[in-house]
Amino acid sequence: MNSMKNRRSIRQYQPKEISPELLNELLETACRASTVGNMQTYSVVVTRDAERKRRLSPAHFGQPMVEEAPVVLTFCIDVRRFSQWCECRQAEPGYDNLEWFVTGAVDALLMAQTFCVAAEEKGLGICYLGTTTYNPDLIAEALELPRLVFPITTVTVGWPAEEPEQTDRLPLAAIVHAEVYHDYSPMDIDRLNAYKESLPANLQFIKENGKQTLAQVFTDVRYTKEANETMSKKLWEVMKRQGFIR
Amino acid sequence: MNSMKNRRSIRQYQPKEISPELLNELLETACRASTVGNMQTYSVVVTRDAERKRRLSPAHFGQPMVEEAPVVLTFCIDVRRFSQWCECRQAEPGYDNLEWFVTGAVDALLMAQTFCVAAEEKGLGICYLGTTTYNPDLIAEALELPRLVFPITTVTVGWPAEEPEQTDRLPLAAIVHAEVYHDYSPMDIDRLNAYKESLPANLQFIKENGKQTLAQVFTDVRYTKEANETMSKKLWEVMKRQGFIR
Repeated sequence: MNSMKNRRSIRQYQPKEISPELLNELLETACRASTVGNMQTYSVVVTRDAERKRRLSPAHFGQPMVEEAPVVLTFCIDVRRFSQWCECRQAEPGYDNLEWFVTGAVDALLMAQTFCVAAEEKGLGICYLGTTTYNPDLIAEALELPRLVFPITTVTVGWPAEEPEQTDRLPLAAIVHAEVYHDYSPMDIDRLNAYKESLPANLQFIKENGKQTLAQVFTDVRYTKEANETMSKKLWEVMKRQGFIR
Repeated sequence: MNSMKNRRSIRQYQPKEISPELLNELLETACRASTVGNMQTYSVVVTRDAERKRRLSPAHFGQPMVEEAPVVLTFCIDVRRFSQWCECRQAEPGYDNLEWFVTGAVDALLMAQTFCVAAEEKGLGICYLGTTTYNPDLIAEALELPRLVFPITTVTVGWPAEEPEQTDRLPLAAIVHAEVYHDYSPMDIDRLNAYKESLPANLQFIKENGKQTLAQVFTDVRYTKEANETMSKKLWEVMKRQGFIR
């Protein structure tokens, strides 16, 4: 419980391996996560090889964690293995569609997060790479992912070489709704974001980016509408290419 | 670690409440999960009211856990709150698209699974309801989810009133790929599924359903191609209706 409460993402790692025994124990533990119909519609690709990390790196916009972490895990939606089993057993699979893209994503992400909680309990540090769904085509290529397999998230793992501050979170009242969704008034928005907007690091962030508000740093610099639309189109194309959309 | 390794889904609960203090502690802990750009693109709707559970129940095909659990949590993708913040701060949001449907799903699911691991550590039992993405329209209606909010998974939570057997999992070799994806030969498929296919409960399951193979129970009874296609179409329609697709 404490390691979950006190966690922070770790982006700098000691030059020290993770033993195969420990990694396997964590992956075994992760497989105990809930999975739809006990179908385990996921696979994990483990990258330890330096050359393979170099090939993965551009997909993650060259973020240094990819080459520096001893282990990079790419968690994939995988309805391929299940479909192959069906075909070997006189059963006609029907999992090449949007519903099973989403169901496989749920399966893969519950497994990924269980891995991360277990890893942190063992003293490892992790960082999720949101870039996975920006460049799924490059990742599929680097890891030779076939049809009906799709990379949904990536986690870098290693022994921490930094102890960053814990980042802020919105108050629970911003996240939790009793019985039905309660929409936010402009006053709610002000109140719920007041602490975040008051943080010196965020004020600095606005200044550095030459913006008036923190929100503008997100919409004009970090995640622009234009980039989001381009990524959505690419995502759709790769979902098609990997066989989830006809 | 032990509670993660020894876990099983719990579908029967004692008639005993979960205190608001404990629930809030677990939700606070869950919010420490990684989140893209620290944007927390999720919301959780907490259902405790018996009448509201009755309204939710059909969306989950009447599974008794929904009405019997003291707490039902619906985890939602939510880019609405973030977009409203942008609009209040002279910033133009661009999160009404497929990329942010997927990114929000990742955020919401990491948070959901952290909640579940923490809850189980406290002795609570949980069960995920995969039905959430089958009937997102009914859930959106029952919980009054507005545009840019989408229910991605549901968890029933309570104090366990059963101690079921732990279910089987595939051997780790079926899930983990070293460096690149290694495709499965029919012999691999046989070997990796041998244990699962030998289990008396699964042999019984084939017999009860009048099938020849376990795979056929999945393709012909539990998750048929036809139902999967219908659900995919509905999912797409609701993604559109909630504003994630134009």
